Amino acid sequence: MTQTRQDQIREGKSKILFSTKDPNQIIQYFKDDATAFNALKKGTIKNKGLINNRISSSLFQYLERKGIQTHFIKQLSEREMLVKKLEIIPVEVVIRNRAAGSLCKRLAIEKGMSFDPALVEYFYKSDALGDPLISEGHILHFRWATAKELSLMVETSLKVNEVLRPVFKEIGLELIDFKLEFGRDAEGKVFLADEFTADGCRLWDLQTQEPMDKDRFRQDLGGVDEAYLEVSKRLQNYFEARL
Amino acid sequence: MTQTRQDQIREGKSKILFSTKDPNQIIQYFKDDATAFNALKKGTIKNKGLINNRISSSLFQYLERKGIQTHFIKQLSEREMLVKKLEIIPVEVVIRNRAAGSLCKRLAIEKGMSFDPALVEYFYKSDALGDPLISEGHILHFRWATAKELSLMVETSLKVNEVLRPVFKEIGLELIDFKLEFGRDAEGKVFLADEFTADGCRLWDLQTQEPMDKDRFRQDLGGVDEAYLEVSKRLQNYFEARL
Repeated sequence: MTQTRQDQIREGKSKILFSTKDPNQIIQYFKDDATAFNALKKGTIKNKGLINNRISSSLFQYLERKGIQTHFIKQLSEREMLVKKLEIIPVEVVIRNRAAGSLCKRLAIEKGMSFDPALVEYFYKSDALGDPLISEGHILHFRWATAKELSLMVETSLKVNEVLRPVFKEIGLELIDFKLEFGRDAEGKVFLADEFTADGCRLWDLQTQEPMDKDRFRQDLGGVDEAYLEVSKRLQNYFEARL
Repeated sequence: MTQTRQDQIREGKSKILFSTKDPNQIIQYFKDDATAFNALKKGTIKNKGLINNRISSSLFQYLERKGIQTHFIKQLSEREMLVKKLEIIPVEVVIRNRAAGSLCKRLAIEKGMSFDPALVEYFYKSDALGDPLISEGHILHFRWATAKELSLMVETSLKVNEVLRPVFKEIGLELIDFKLEFGRDAEGKVFLADEFTADGCRLWDLQTQEPMDKDRFRQDLGGVDEAYLEVSKRLQNYFEARL
């Protein structure tokens, strides 16, 4: 049975969630809306919803093949992804291979500084508080995740890094950093959730060192629509050549 | 030989550091200056320097007796403390027994929420950056401390909590939270450094629940001088009765 949208559950900054007739499955609908700096900056990126659904679907499928359990079930349409219904853990895991963005400002770290092993950061998922940086202690004390969940989240995030860095490198992009979200199903099992797109990661072109991600929107660099489309095309070619 | 002040090394917000004729010893001179909110708020607290030197000296001596290694050598005068010359580790360790201050705002935590075990937080010691919150990952990646130093710092901080909570309780005060700094000597050995005073901790009166610390200054509650003096007197009585 192909699931179709029932009631709207929640509208986020870049996606709308809908229930389906199956209580364990929901639909993520990808919008073109773009926000930055905790939604202080708003706009749209042409076809972003469609592109992000395509990128996320192909990357989640690839991650699944590499043994990483995600909420992805299948791509339903251009802008719709069927996913497992999860209780989202309010902790964003950020993996940084190089310094960029908020980190540079926050700690006066030089942009581009390389991290090996990758730097792991945690943020508390709260629009009202501006997604503040947190540490392991906060996560455990406030019971946002258990120690077991947290270690699984970190391990999975580092594995995602290991799996995706070579993919991006093959298509001429360096994976600078990325944000992941996780959720638990009714049985408490933890899955990678949300999305993996140019909205939530930094990709620098290996030739030009130009950003090919949401930094083009954040910093008004122009060519935003084109960058998203370019990343999507390169990924599509990469995966098609390997099917 | 009693050391005397030679050259001024550095003037901080509440202390001035002087060299001595011994290259391994320096003098901390305690000022009456008080600052809050990263020095946006400035003032003086009557006799604070004298009181803080007295409080810190007696607490450091007590901690030493309990097996905690501090930079304290001896109190030289009303406002002067002779200490080991250390390279200060740029990480402040904050131990919280209850939620108060920046934590409540940052993460929307209810004031007074109790933590058992204590919550450990780390801040990067940088006036220019406003002492930002950091996590273990930052400390290790940016080599602000080694893993061994960090674990010693946390262990020592928790032991300080264990040792001082009952002392404050005996004198009618609840130790809500406190900040510690550490430094390494020429051989790389780590010592508790800086000070332990009402400037860097929160103490709530067990009877009235009133703050008896720098929050009186931060929040313009009045009775600032009196609170500092009262804490000092109660501590003095406590230690005198036990000598």
